[in-house]
Amino acid sequence: MSEQAEFQLEMTVRDYECDMQGIVNNGVYQNYLEHARHEFLKEIGIDFVDYTQRGINLVVIRAELDYKLPLSGGDRFKVTVKLEQESRARFAFHQQIIRLSDDRLSLKAKIVGTAMNDRGRPSIPAELDKIMSEMG
Amino acid sequence: MSEQAEFQLEMTVRDYECDMQGIVNNGVYQNYLEHARHEFLKEIGIDFVDYTQRGINLVVIRAELDYKLPLSGGDRFKVTVKLEQESRARFAFHQQIIRLSDDRLSLKAKIVGTAMNDRGRPSIPAELDKIMSEMG
Amino acid sequence: MSEQAEFQLEMTVRDYECDMQGIVNNGVYQNYLEHARHEFLKEIGIDFVDYTQRGINLVVIRAELDYKLPLSGGDRFKVTVKLEQESRARFAFHQQIIRLSDDRLSLKAKIVGTAMNDRGRPSIPAELDKIMSEMG
Amino acid sequence: MSEQAEFQLEMTVRDYECDMQGIVNNGVYQNYLEHARHEFLKEIGIDFVDYTQRGINLVVIRAELDYKLPLSGGDRFKVTVKLEQESRARFAFHQQIIRLSDDRLSLKAKIVGTAMNDRGRPSIPAELDKIMSEMG
Repeated sequence: MSEQAEFQLEMTVRDYECDMQGIVNNGVYQNYLEHARHEFLKEIGIDFVDYTQRGINLVVIRAELDYKLPLSGGDRFKVTVKLEQESRARFAFHQQIIRLSDDRLSLKAKIVGTAMNDRGRPSIPAELDKIMSEMG
Repeated sequence: MSEQAEFQLEMTVRDYECDMQGIVNNGVYQNYLEHARHEFLKEIGIDFVDYTQRGINLVVIRAELDYKLPLSGGDRFKVTVKLEQESRARFAFHQQIIRLSDDRLSLKAKIVGTAMNDRGRPSIPAELDKIMSEMG
Repeated sequence: MSEQAEFQLEMTVRDYECDMQGIVNNGVYQNYLEHARHEFLKEIGIDFVDYTQRGINLVVIRAELDYKLPLSGGDRFKVTVKLEQESRARFAFHQQIIRLSDDRLSLKAKIVGTAMNDRGRPSIPAELDKIMSEMG
Repeated sequence: MSEQAEFQLEMTVRDYECDMQGIVNNGVYQNYLEHARHEFLKEIGIDFVDYTQRGINLVVIRAELDYKLPLSGGDRFKVTVKLEQESRARFAFHQQIIRLSDDRLSLKAKIVGTAMNDRGRPSIPAELDKIMSEMG
């Protein structure tokens, strides 16, 4: 995959994202991953808000998450995104969450998504097609 | 697996759990799954709150989620839980989210967890060991 | 105010709603209050989802919350709703969160809302007008 | 109040924080406000995580929020914090959320908090006392 498709975003754990164990609740990591994907998509010309308003729904169809190391309140981390086309209508996002203090892997994920119009039919954004063909 | 290990919990989608697409945000399903697992665990004698206070952390180490059908505000659904022992220290929860209005599958998941003490060592609750041996 | 306008909903604290202090995070109570208001509105014929789709936005313009007693994981509680008209276009919801185990008040709130159409103009649902006139 | 007590933090609306109306859900603003308060407290030497671990619970006892202008996905905004001592054991945080694109006020809030030890008794951090006396 070409280097252009790599993306990373730095974030900080907010205290309200931690649960009674004092660590980030397992569902919150999906929020981090989604936010990084959307920022990545925006950079390649796909604005989630705009697409939603135009009736094109970018949706997740499968998520695989490996939890390696829990993050705690105040931890700085980066979320990476690499895009890979799985089929005409399926895109895989390979993502990592890495704690910045010691560069250790906190979570590894593969998120598979597609795009559908309001009638539930696949509707792949031209921008995605374009970047995919450029990536060869 | 024995029937005793099956559990189900009925819930309703709350409007704030829906995102701008008008459907439940993908991270929220993990909340539903976790709540059902904790209620299941409570029923077999494992109280997450109590365990946390005693320094035994039940944690998720891998999650696989297949999103089949999005839920919307007000939808009634049930979350099922089936428990399977994967190894001495790893437990798999097979879970489904089923929309009650038409009995259709909304999400299928396998959540793998373990238990660790405060020093990061595996620490399996005796209640889990017991139910596992009873289940044969 | 007439008794018909009173409403209550029972709920249970989910463990993921608790933060590192082991108690429900302060922002989560607003979720509880909103969910109870929406269920109340549905009962009097105002469906938040349906209104949103028709371009009528029910919005909060002021919230006052008094935190009296924190809830913890597993706590059962009820949320009450009483509706009062403040002006032609402003409605006040008087709400309480009461812990069921000992009937103690956990939170008291006044939430003021209005309804606006897509052009940002006040647009009060006929159902609200009707119940208000019936309440005298 | 002295200028030293002013603080501001820039943030971006994440798409998952928006609800079906396409705007930030009303409960999420409390998360923004809390995160800014905790960052402010950290700057003056009070680490929420550390305090919690030491058994000193910083808690909100009252919140007043005026919603002026909804934020949407991708909006950049700043959260401001001004601290004022209301009594020996009560502190008021005056906070604003301002949209950066047009400098318009989105939300104005007064959050009153206190600190309690594990036995529920007031326990004001020395750092707070110190900054308060310095502020005159």
